[in-house]
Amino acid sequence: MNTNQIRGVETMQACGLIVEYNPFHNGHAYHIQASKEASGADCMIAVMSGSFLQRGEPAIIDKFHRAKAALQAGVDIVVELPYLYAVQSSDLFARGSVHTLSELGVSSICFGSESGDISHFTTGYDVWNKNQSTYQTALQENMARGLAFPEASRLASGAIGLTTGGMDLAKPNNILGFSYVKTILDDQLPIDPLTVGRLDSDYHDKSITGTIASATSIRNELIKNEYISETANRSLPGETADQLQKYKQKATIWHRWEHYFHLVHYRVMTMTEAELAAIHGMDEGLEYRIKKTAHNAASFRDWLNSIKTKRYTWTRLQRTFTHILTNTKKTDVARIQHIPSVPYVRLLGMTESGRAYLNNWKKDMGVPLLSTLARQTDPMSAIEEKASHAYYSILPAEKKRAFHHQELEPPIMV
Amino acid sequence: MNTNQIRGVETMQACGLIVEYNPFHNGHAYHIQASKEASGADCMIAVMSGSFLQRGEPAIIDKFHRAKAALQAGVDIVVELPYLYAVQSSDLFARGSVHTLSELGVSSICFGSESGDISHFTTGYDVWNKNQSTYQTALQENMARGLAFPEASRLASGAIGLTTGGMDLAKPNNILGFSYVKTILDDQLPIDPLTVGRLDSDYHDKSITGTIASATSIRNELIKNEYISETANRSLPGETADQLQKYKQKATIWHRWEHYFHLVHYRVMTMTEAELAAIHGMDEGLEYRIKKTAHNAASFRDWLNSIKTKRYTWTRLQRTFTHILTNTKKTDVARIQHIPSVPYVRLLGMTESGRAYLNNWKKDMGVPLLSTLARQTDPMSAIEEKASHAYYSILPAEKKRAFHHQELEPPIMV
Repeated sequence: MNTNQIRGVETMQACGLIVEYNPFHNGHAYHIQASKEASGADCMIAVMSGSFLQRGEPAIIDKFHRAKAALQAGVDIVVELPYLYAVQSSDLFARGSVHTLSELGVSSICFGSESGDISHFTTGYDVWNKNQSTYQTALQENMARGLAFPEASRLASGAIGLTTGGMDLAKPNNILGFSYVKTILDDQLPIDPLTVGRLDSDYHDKSITGTIASATSIRNELIKNEYISETANRSLPGETADQLQKYKQKATIWHRWEHYFHLVHYRVMTMTEAELAAIHGMDEGLEYRIKKTAHNAASFRDWLNSIKTKRYTWTRLQRTFTHILTNTKKTDVARIQHIPSVPYVRLLGMTESGRAYLNNWKKDMGVPLLSTLARQTDPMSAIEEKASHAYYSILPAEKKRAFHHQELEPPIMV
Repeated sequence: MNTNQIRGVETMQACGLIVEYNPFHNGHAYHIQASKEASGADCMIAVMSGSFLQRGEPAIIDKFHRAKAALQAGVDIVVELPYLYAVQSSDLFARGSVHTLSELGVSSICFGSESGDISHFTTGYDVWNKNQSTYQTALQENMARGLAFPEASRLASGAIGLTTGGMDLAKPNNILGFSYVKTILDDQLPIDPLTVGRLDSDYHDKSITGTIASATSIRNELIKNEYISETANRSLPGETADQLQKYKQKATIWHRWEHYFHLVHYRVMTMTEAELAAIHGMDEGLEYRIKKTAHNAASFRDWLNSIKTKRYTWTRLQRTFTHILTNTKKTDVARIQHIPSVPYVRLLGMTESGRAYLNNWKKDMGVPLLSTLARQTDPMSAIEEKASHAYYSILPAEKKRAFHHQELEPPIMV
């Protein structure tokens, strides 16, 4: 990790990763290592979702504990993707992540994909660019037929020949990867898009990564048992197991939606339809359906199952429920719709090497680099604060306060 | 209770009581009996606060269980005072209660007072009426000096000689009694105001009431022990003890503010100051003070103590927190500010005798008599529904649903 002694801080190259680390597992460790090799960078910068994730779920442990595990496993700098970008479909998620990394001066962004071949994405971009109006028309037609966005997009992609290559736009990870590439190329950012092949969940590479399991299966395993089973342990770096234990010791729980069911139910029951309609993601009369189904909902899962249709996918509903929980309104999202970059970059943690990079770079940054949550200085910070409070709101008063206080402490140093 | 056989249903006389029954105790049983004698009425009608009380507190057990205890102890009809009138200072509370009883055709309203002499109130009304502008000026001046309403009102009353008689307007119960009389006389309702002397809390009258304790001391005793102690039991009619037990068996708790602390804290933490400012009762920048103190609040009591000032009295703060919990806005209260009577009367329960009275009377009513909570037929019902959901929101999902379902069942018959 002493490459800066060889190259000198001024010439350090950074590579960006876009992640959730929920929790950080062996596949992530492999991704960092492979990205480092592919990019030849000295400094790995991860932009990470905070309290709530892209799929509209609370993170299993808080962002501070996840950031620490990532730093211990090879990332040099962890910054937080603001809530308004994190709990969004691919377009805004990609815009927030890519621009955050761009503000930090990365020369490349490396994401995982099935094919591991970036030309599938860049060629795809050219096809998409030349056939935008055909794509948009097909997309709108499919949505008007009642299809959810992923399926509508897959069919529209087929209509312009985008599913013929190594990149199937019906796969969520490919949609994300394509969105990163699209943001870089659309906004003409001086960043190389890179991709490395994902390891299958049954892939074994003991020398680097131990067992690789899918993030979902690890999470399910953890949440089902409420402790780290042998199976889960094989997929987790020691640092992660450590942070998972530490968080649980302090908080007594690993966060999941069912913990928030009573809160979001209480909210829906004390809101009018008009108030619900002002929440981000509440479209096409979804507020009536949420109200109507609330009376008989016995659990969060039960409730979403009773709302779910072809159009309202599980992920879309989870995102909308996250916005109810955090009281995030359409007017809040409107704030970021038309700003070209991100309003600030929020630093969560860094290594010594990361600190050297930032010290050199930060004078060139076009937006503020915040090392703590600035209380109510601007509407964006107020939204971050609400998300953080909503996340910890299920804990007893003293714990809530103690955990939230991390927001005001200096960045984690590893 | 067969007076209607003697007099005939057509000539039945009703006397109104304005109550909270939190819980129904021996003093209430005495009040019913004394009011019956003073009024000579055949039918006793109680208008009762629902889930939340005038002092801005959740009722210890729900309105259905309290109504049942009241019916078993001598009341013939129990109707609910809508939330928008119940959780208010004396003026709106009195207007809602008196007009509800007026719509039910009561010929008298009987309230308890220290002196037990109605002339103190009617004479007081004349004095107040003749000196309204002096009173108002003094009141405004006192409030401008930072005094809370009760103290400001007491001094203003002194300024026009209203504290010289048997009615001291600094005592909350006298303020309420005076407000009832004022509503009756201001609105020229064909109702006789009556008052009966309260029994002191150390008064013993074994033949009628057993031990009389203050409502507050009984409630404190119940909540402290979480069971009915010997002391509490002596102050409660058997029917009340029964309903308290039954409710606790089903709900597992007796409701108190601390149960709602996490909900109201979560709400405040996920609201902007501007959103808080839209809540009823949020005046003079109180929203900033609530936000600021929220970070270190370890309990509801702790939080209110850190907000309380000479101007923001405990009761006023509790009411405001109830409105945060139920999401009741200034615009909601504006709905009832300028209607001359009440929008409807909600029946909670009755005896056979009460039913006979209502069957005869209801054809003459100027507003609808609702026997269940009409879902979302009008904004007022939506507010009642929110209050009911907020009240039960601290219970597990199945219990919440079962208790709320009482709102849709026919009135209790005793």
